Amino acid sequence: MGPLQDICVAIDDHKSETAVFVNGKFCKDLKYAEAKDFFFSGLQNPGNTDNRVGSNVTTVNVDQIPSLNTLSISLARIDYALYGQNSSHTHPRGTEILVVVDGSLLVGFVTSNTENRLFTKVLNKGDVFVFPIGLIHFQFNVGHSNALAFAALSSQNAGVITIADTVFGSDPSINPDFLAKAFQLDKNIVEDLQKKFE
Amino acid sequence: MGPLQDICVAIDDHKSETAVFVNGKFCKDLKYAEAKDFFFSGLQNPGNTDNRVGSNVTTVNVDQIPSLNTLSISLARIDYALYGQNSSHTHPRGTEILVVVDGSLLVGFVTSNTENRLFTKVLNKGDVFVFPIGLIHFQFNVGHSNALAFAALSSQNAGVITIADTVFGSDPSINPDFLAKAFQLDKNIVEDLQKKFE
Amino acid sequence: MGPLQDICVAIDDHKSETAVFVNGKFCKDLKYAEAKDFFFSGLQNPGNTDNRVGSNVTTVNVDQIPSLNTLSISLARIDYALYGQNSSHTHPRGTEILVVVDGSLLVGFVTSNTENRLFTKVLNKGDVFVFPIGLIHFQFNVGHSNALAFAALSSQNAGVITIADTVFGSDPSINPDFLAKAFQLDKNIVEDLQKKFE
Amino acid sequence: MGPLQDICVAIDDHKSETAVFVNGKFCKDLKYAEAKDFFFSGLQNPGNTDNRVGSNVTTVNVDQIPSLNTLSISLARIDYALYGQNSSHTHPRGTEILVVVDGSLLVGFVTSNTENRLFTKVLNKGDVFVFPIGLIHFQFNVGHSNALAFAALSSQNAGVITIADTVFGSDPSINPDFLAKAFQLDKNIVEDLQKKFE
Amino acid sequence: MGPLQDICVAIDDHKSETAVFVNGKFCKDLKYAEAKDFFFSGLQNPGNTDNRVGSNVTTVNVDQIPSLNTLSISLARIDYALYGQNSSHTHPRGTEILVVVDGSLLVGFVTSNTENRLFTKVLNKGDVFVFPIGLIHFQFNVGHSNALAFAALSSQNAGVITIADTVFGSDPSINPDFLAKAFQLDKNIVEDLQKKFE
Amino acid sequence: MGPLQDICVAIDDHKSETAVFVNGKFCKDLKYAEAKDFFFSGLQNPGNTDNRVGSNVTTVNVDQIPSLNTLSISLARIDYALYGQNSSHTHPRGTEILVVVDGSLLVGFVTSNTENRLFTKVLNKGDVFVFPIGLIHFQFNVGHSNALAFAALSSQNAGVITIADTVFGSDPSINPDFLAKAFQLDKNIVEDLQKKFE
Repeated sequence: MGPLQDICVAIDDHKSETAVFVNGKFCKDLKYAEAKDFFFSGLQNPGNTDNRVGSNVTTVNVDQIPSLNTLSISLARIDYALYGQNSSHTHPRGTEILVVVDGSLLVGFVTSNTENRLFTKVLNKGDVFVFPIGLIHFQFNVGHSNALAFAALSSQNAGVITIADTVFGSDPSINPDFLAKAFQLDKNIVEDLQKKFE
Repeated sequence: MGPLQDICVAIDDHKSETAVFVNGKFCKDLKYAEAKDFFFSGLQNPGNTDNRVGSNVTTVNVDQIPSLNTLSISLARIDYALYGQNSSHTHPRGTEILVVVDGSLLVGFVTSNTENRLFTKVLNKGDVFVFPIGLIHFQFNVGHSNALAFAALSSQNAGVITIADTVFGSDPSINPDFLAKAFQLDKNIVEDLQKKFE
Repeated sequence: MGPLQDICVAIDDHKSETAVFVNGKFCKDLKYAEAKDFFFSGLQNPGNTDNRVGSNVTTVNVDQIPSLNTLSISLARIDYALYGQNSSHTHPRGTEILVVVDGSLLVGFVTSNTENRLFTKVLNKGDVFVFPIGLIHFQFNVGHSNALAFAALSSQNAGVITIADTVFGSDPSINPDFLAKAFQLDKNIVEDLQKKFE
Repeated sequence: MGPLQDICVAIDDHKSETAVFVNGKFCKDLKYAEAKDFFFSGLQNPGNTDNRVGSNVTTVNVDQIPSLNTLSISLARIDYALYGQNSSHTHPRGTEILVVVDGSLLVGFVTSNTENRLFTKVLNKGDVFVFPIGLIHFQFNVGHSNALAFAALSSQNAGVITIADTVFGSDPSINPDFLAKAFQLDKNIVEDLQKKFE
Repeated sequence: MGPLQDICVAIDDHKSETAVFVNGKFCKDLKYAEAKDFFFSGLQNPGNTDNRVGSNVTTVNVDQIPSLNTLSISLARIDYALYGQNSSHTHPRGTEILVVVDGSLLVGFVTSNTENRLFTKVLNKGDVFVFPIGLIHFQFNVGHSNALAFAALSSQNAGVITIADTVFGSDPSINPDFLAKAFQLDKNIVEDLQKKFE
Repeated sequence: MGPLQDICVAIDDHKSETAVFVNGKFCKDLKYAEAKDFFFSGLQNPGNTDNRVGSNVTTVNVDQIPSLNTLSISLARIDYALYGQNSSHTHPRGTEILVVVDGSLLVGFVTSNTENRLFTKVLNKGDVFVFPIGLIHFQFNVGHSNALAFAALSSQNAGVITIADTVFGSDPSINPDFLAKAFQLDKNIVEDLQKKFE
């Protein structure tokens, strides 16, 4: 139904054992809303890309800006180290539109069965690309320096499902026999992956 | 906006080179609508599970029943051979509710980052389970015979993204160096997988 | 807006006099969610059809599976005794898709004014039929044995309005003079019906 | 998704045998839109209530005002003769809000199973009442003169299902044996009703 | 998602300092719902038009009729004194459909950039006009007497943004230098306006 | 209903006099979709701010990236000259989230009647702010150099209504007597404004 009032700033006063929640978030009394509820500071700072995949996503969604509650949009800064990648993932609740601010990225997404068609493109500074809701997509730094992009998503909380982490690193683990058959891998390779992504 | 008339039976008369489409489907003149536009026959027949994963999904969505156009629901019959599985996949546009008609299934889904929590359960005849929209989920036949389930999805065309096929079998292929880094696999294993899922 | 988080398992801790509610249901803290919140057992059992119309609907909606909250789908098992019927009714909040598991059903629905056109068909095992949202529809057992169907609905709580019970059995009763005029029945027949449906 | 442009004025240029339709209506080129596409004249005139139920609904929806396409609202003028009624009906795609302009109406609606609770009230000039989407409702003229109301509905084409006409007057007829059992009426009474509502 | 139950009557029992809110309103226990929750009395009375613009809007939305919660519709009575106007305004969350009950109105709306096209028409008794969601629109009394209209809006709480009051009368004020540049007015005229609309 | 297929790339082949449209856009056959349908190049270039208000918006919506059709998001680059402003405006179909890339902006929005409360803040590089759907908002360059921001909107075609241009520069003009009364300006000032915004 979209928003049913001008603003509905999310509030988190449910800390007790009996906490209840709603779809989205509870919101605070309008009379206590302030400009800072609509504000976030920090996207000027590069994220720390010193990790396995060499990328970092700084998310600005309803958890960072409470006024995004009910408003169907959020933002992210993505930093890529040299050779870094934002590995294959989906957003279960949002389409993404990305603009490159610095560097060069190879980006792509794959359509659903039975086509599984890959759409891919190299993006440079000022280029924009769209990743439709729910489809698996990725970005790779293919330039000669760090890269930087901003991305917007069509949900206050689009969610991220990184494929490798979710399949091989779930808590608890999925039965390795099953994964071995699904991915056509030896069971010992699957078990090795499960240790790495633990 | 949901449906804007009683019925809007999908029609496929756009076969020419200049074909155009809409979100969902065009629909035919109500005066030509017939009971058979609301009908599908065939779910009494087991699907052919003689394939790599030992399962088969018979989908009944807007492509099979044209009157499902605009109505936000569809159905499927799923057959599982002994040891068969419906491998890790997501539906980008639908939640699934599944009822077991015969046999025993181990089912599960994994929440998004950063929890990646696995919810899992063994289902027997008459048991029902829910897989929320966009999340990775699976079913494994853990009984001593073939298994059979019906599943409903909250979209006229929920889509299916089988993870292994999409990541390793996209057309064209994703760069194996990138996948090797993302999945922490040797590049030659990735290339081998890409041949298997081709 | 659809779901705004992976899962929002319904919770019922509002038992006091001052209870408040929301559109749909409150949900519990994600950290207390369990696999059984996504699970229901019992659809293997026939419902009791020993009633006036000779049918029984076992509903599996958000009241039975709390995780259906926000997810726009639900399920039902429908049993039909010999000559049994699921009488004329509407679902104010959902389209229905039905698959016959055993037996033979004559099914139908009627479009809105001014056409009031009846779409009808005999279904056998494995046949599927669609009843569009809000339209009056029915199923009759026209086979030589009990019949069984599963039905899915495009809402977590689609609602059921059985026409005869609602019009003649409301609490309190609708003025019989008015109903007599509307249905072109003698007032004493209306009053008799109101006793039967009380 | 709501409207995706300022205006999308419905157009009807699909008169041929090969006509196709969409959810809602096709719209014309914005440059040909005119003020009269947003306009309807005629609600100053009483409708003809010289019929069986003594009421008349003049509908102003997307068929009368083409610019209502995509905009989720419509209007109606309802005239009631002395003792007239707008018999039990539902709107499958809209909530109704009604204001009495002249006279006195007894209005009501019934909730769904299993409560089937009747909410009812007498309305006088200037009184407003709400009938929630999909629920069976009615208005009876209980004053000493003609009555007049305006009603708005939350859809460009909310639909009307008059219960008696739909159940007993569908085209073709529903099997009278089935209706007799459902409504606990003698079969000959049902057949008599079917002739009256034909 | 639209309503997820038959009715969800808004309730206001959050008076304390720690009050929390939701998108729309909390609703009360269905068992305490009464016919008067669906009812409003007062639209028979003219509003007081003795103000600067010579018009008055009596709103009947979810604040007046609590059962409108989740139901996407509301109503208003608009009175116009001789030469009165309902000045340029938008409804951020609703399309409006208006019917003239008495008098003559010049009405209009303007499309968005870059066209800014004015659609305008003189309406007399019984005429209906549509103002699409979010667009700036107005009504002027151009007849020789008071005028009266009813309007329905496609939201339980459509909101009203009166342009002059919002731009020149916000609390606190917008910097007059900025407004002077935007509106191409002398700064002293802007400051004068800001005093008038304070 | 959101997207009903993976992708629905907008197509413009309706050039003839008899052109028809739909809510959103027609889309092309999936088999002709290409990576460039998801791509836009040009946001590296500053827009031309040599105009009356000293700002420029480069929009990237469904008209620039056809694959945005059905996907509920779009992007913009906004350049501000020294002392430049993006004057008071609304987006009738979208919430905006803005990130400052260079410079300092004073931003604000005003809530609807009857509060008309101004929320305002000075933003520097890396700061983010939210402007809720349909509310009047603005940005002013208050730094010592040009400023640059990216903004995302929650619609494929959010629309822009610049208040001054729409009220005083509509085509044709709104009656100056009416505007004079509404804005409490002398009629000759209104007529002067109408010439300036023509």
